[in-house]
Amino acid sequence: MDIQDWSLLTDLYELTMMQGYFETPQEQKKVVFDLFYRTNPSDASFAITCGLDQAIDYIKQLHFSQSDLDYLRSLGIFSDSFLSYLKDFRFTGTIYAIPEGTVVFPMEPLMRVEAPIMEAQLVETALLNIINHQSLIATKAARIVWAAEGDPVLEFGLRRAQGPDAGTYGARAAVIGGCVGTSNVLTGKLFDVPVKGTHAHSWVMSFPSELEAFRSYAKQFPDACILLVDTYNTLEQGVPNAIQCFKEMKEAGYELKGYGIRLDSGDLAYMSKQARKMLDEAGFADAIISASSDLDENLISSLKTQKAKISLWGVGTKLITSDDTPAFGGVYKLAAETDEAGNWVPKIKLSNNPEKITLPGKKKVYRIYDKETGKIKADLICLETETLDETKDLTLFDQTATWKKMHLKAGHYTVRELLVPIFVDGQCVYTSPKTMDIRAYAQGELGTLWDEHRRLKNPHTVPVDLSEELYTLREKMIREFK
Amino acid sequence: MDIQDWSLLTDLYELTMMQGYFETPQEQKKVVFDLFYRTNPSDASFAITCGLDQAIDYIKQLHFSQSDLDYLRSLGIFSDSFLSYLKDFRFTGTIYAIPEGTVVFPMEPLMRVEAPIMEAQLVETALLNIINHQSLIATKAARIVWAAEGDPVLEFGLRRAQGPDAGTYGARAAVIGGCVGTSNVLTGKLFDVPVKGTHAHSWVMSFPSELEAFRSYAKQFPDACILLVDTYNTLEQGVPNAIQCFKEMKEAGYELKGYGIRLDSGDLAYMSKQARKMLDEAGFADAIISASSDLDENLISSLKTQKAKISLWGVGTKLITSDDTPAFGGVYKLAAETDEAGNWVPKIKLSNNPEKITLPGKKKVYRIYDKETGKIKADLICLETETLDETKDLTLFDQTATWKKMHLKAGHYTVRELLVPIFVDGQCVYTSPKTMDIRAYAQGELGTLWDEHRRLKNPHTVPVDLSEELYTLREKMIREFK
Repeated sequence: MDIQDWSLLTDLYELTMMQGYFETPQEQKKVVFDLFYRTNPSDASFAITCGLDQAIDYIKQLHFSQSDLDYLRSLGIFSDSFLSYLKDFRFTGTIYAIPEGTVVFPMEPLMRVEAPIMEAQLVETALLNIINHQSLIATKAARIVWAAEGDPVLEFGLRRAQGPDAGTYGARAAVIGGCVGTSNVLTGKLFDVPVKGTHAHSWVMSFPSELEAFRSYAKQFPDACILLVDTYNTLEQGVPNAIQCFKEMKEAGYELKGYGIRLDSGDLAYMSKQARKMLDEAGFADAIISASSDLDENLISSLKTQKAKISLWGVGTKLITSDDTPAFGGVYKLAAETDEAGNWVPKIKLSNNPEKITLPGKKKVYRIYDKETGKIKADLICLETETLDETKDLTLFDQTATWKKMHLKAGHYTVRELLVPIFVDGQCVYTSPKTMDIRAYAQGELGTLWDEHRRLKNPHTVPVDLSEELYTLREKMIREFK
Repeated sequence: MDIQDWSLLTDLYELTMMQGYFETPQEQKKVVFDLFYRTNPSDASFAITCGLDQAIDYIKQLHFSQSDLDYLRSLGIFSDSFLSYLKDFRFTGTIYAIPEGTVVFPMEPLMRVEAPIMEAQLVETALLNIINHQSLIATKAARIVWAAEGDPVLEFGLRRAQGPDAGTYGARAAVIGGCVGTSNVLTGKLFDVPVKGTHAHSWVMSFPSELEAFRSYAKQFPDACILLVDTYNTLEQGVPNAIQCFKEMKEAGYELKGYGIRLDSGDLAYMSKQARKMLDEAGFADAIISASSDLDENLISSLKTQKAKISLWGVGTKLITSDDTPAFGGVYKLAAETDEAGNWVPKIKLSNNPEKITLPGKKKVYRIYDKETGKIKADLICLETETLDETKDLTLFDQTATWKKMHLKAGHYTVRELLVPIFVDGQCVYTSPKTMDIRAYAQGELGTLWDEHRRLKNPHTVPVDLSEELYTLREKMIREFK
């Protein structure tokens, strides 16, 4: 297994196009590609961008080993001169990106790659793969955590994830999106995030009785002792045995902390209310009731509405696969290129579908906040040469209904540029924060949305507008093409 | 990045349970766990089991490095004696599995792990992760390939896969399920499968005109020249330019082979019929029309019904994520354990939901074929000590409606045991076939199903029955428990 070397993690056509460029005057060209998406996943009005840390690792390690070159040669479609170019290949371009954990919206460049055309083309597939995956899971996690209304949510999905990386990087993204920890030990080690877990049904089954299994577990893990109570019969046996076990622990002098039960099947609303009553009556009012059975944001929200007595949520399959929307539709489109004189020329991709028309030119993104509340008012996509001046009034307009305007008075708004430099001329100039720091940043980011933006169904959307200059350029290019 | 070492790719609770067993007399116990699933994905009546090759790699490499041990120690929940046990940990158990590419059904052990309890517990999560993921994608691919009615199908999903592994192992699984190749170059290198691809919209956009872009591509890749025709206007510009390009190639003396066009947007039924007409009228009746736009088995099937003129299918997102069912519900359940005297004792997990009651005991699976047609008649799950005698008549019965019987006359059926030894006492005794050989085997396997089992909606199901001995044991254990 040599899977950690991602240099060949690319579609074949990136390499055939590279060779194509290599053999033509195109080779000299520099280009700008934007990585952006068009639709939010899972009915959301936003996404959390995620995966930059791994994207950086990918760009840094990008090189073709002798065995990669031998393999490519064996395909019989690459020239010797192209293969010897690949031998010394290093990424020399400049990449700007929106930091991980940021709330983002459709059409905004999450990443802007400026590089010689061959380099920019090569990195398309892996960058999309990494950013698409982790942004998907971070966004799903943010929704699930929101539904839990402040209760802690744990990521438990490794066994159902789409392969080892999906489980490992997916757990990282879930934590960035708001989970307090994961069951995945490898994620814990690699990214220094809390790992959690107790025991399975097989633990209970391997003892002569459930009570003996509970006693043995409690003896060894007296702190954070969460007992799984549904192996045989939850309310008639599991909960009474857990209560018996907690009583014995108390009698033995243990200070019960972070202890409780886990429900993994049955009607969680009913079971949790009954279990809560039994625990309270037995004097264990502070016992946690956790649940983990095919949960997602909608089920958690429904359980909350039903006043289920669950205070800790373990979410597996539907989080780690983003069950309802298992792909994040990030794309990577040409926005500009240099002409023969080396001047930048904006490029556009037309489509019969207006939403699929791209934004031409090298661009940047401003986020505009309401000064008083700190909430997002709108995002503004501009050409890179434009500058917003906070000391002046600002008028934004809707690009599909240009008569819809938003007027912002100087002093009542603040702005922030979202894209920051990651690589400059091939050198990495960015240090990724630690995963838990990205998580904290993302929590702050989510706080810049109103609840109406975060609600699960039909959320209110944040306007993403174009500057007048960008709008005019795009209209002109569409007209000229026709 | 140290991701290729999967030893910590596990849920924390596997390790806490291991330590729990380590500290009790349980440590001596040997157990049997079954890895099986309960419901076929995507409305299918079957699944294709896949991932064994990576599961073998995982078991072989399983060990705890010093940095793993340091990390586990840092968690503050593991004892020194347990950590020093882990230091020398190697898997010493015996694993049987159904070979990759085999058609399988719910409730059958795809893998049977017999090992000391700590070892068997540890490997649960990673085995489930690997087998769940690849079986999911192989099954989805088999459905998509079936819908294409013999046309070649290519896997194109890397950019939307759930991380690098999902793209790479997913492409492997897609090929095993029937795809003729993938765009993923890393999969091509690692598993020696065909890689395919042509060019993107950005290629066309980077040239002054579409025709120049086509000419340049054709010049460099005259063999298998597939031109993407939808960058600007498919029927008014793209197809005419492609035809012009093919004419020029012909005039220049190229022998046009495996050439054609690719449609990546628009109404594929309409576009393909119009393009076919235009290509035919221009004398390019053998030009391929390929399509690649959010395809899955249902859309391909609909296009076939509409007599779309597409003969090569590139399938991306919906295959590589198994869009409609993004998780394969494999589980890992205790089936037997040794008592203090070392004798095997069957174990059962009860549930209020009858489908969730497990099958007790160490088991094997017989596949029963109709001798004349070679098609599957039924599968029979038995205790491992039982043997089917082909020279005798055989009567099977439905476990939920025991009066439903199937009588098989000696000489009219053949049987085959599905589980084969993979590891014996920690030693690997199995050599995985090459991926393309597994693909060929899987094609044969799919041929043992009738079309009625393979159809996309409401397929006919193959009976999976229990031997009388196993059925009786299970009934007795359920009764005794009550």
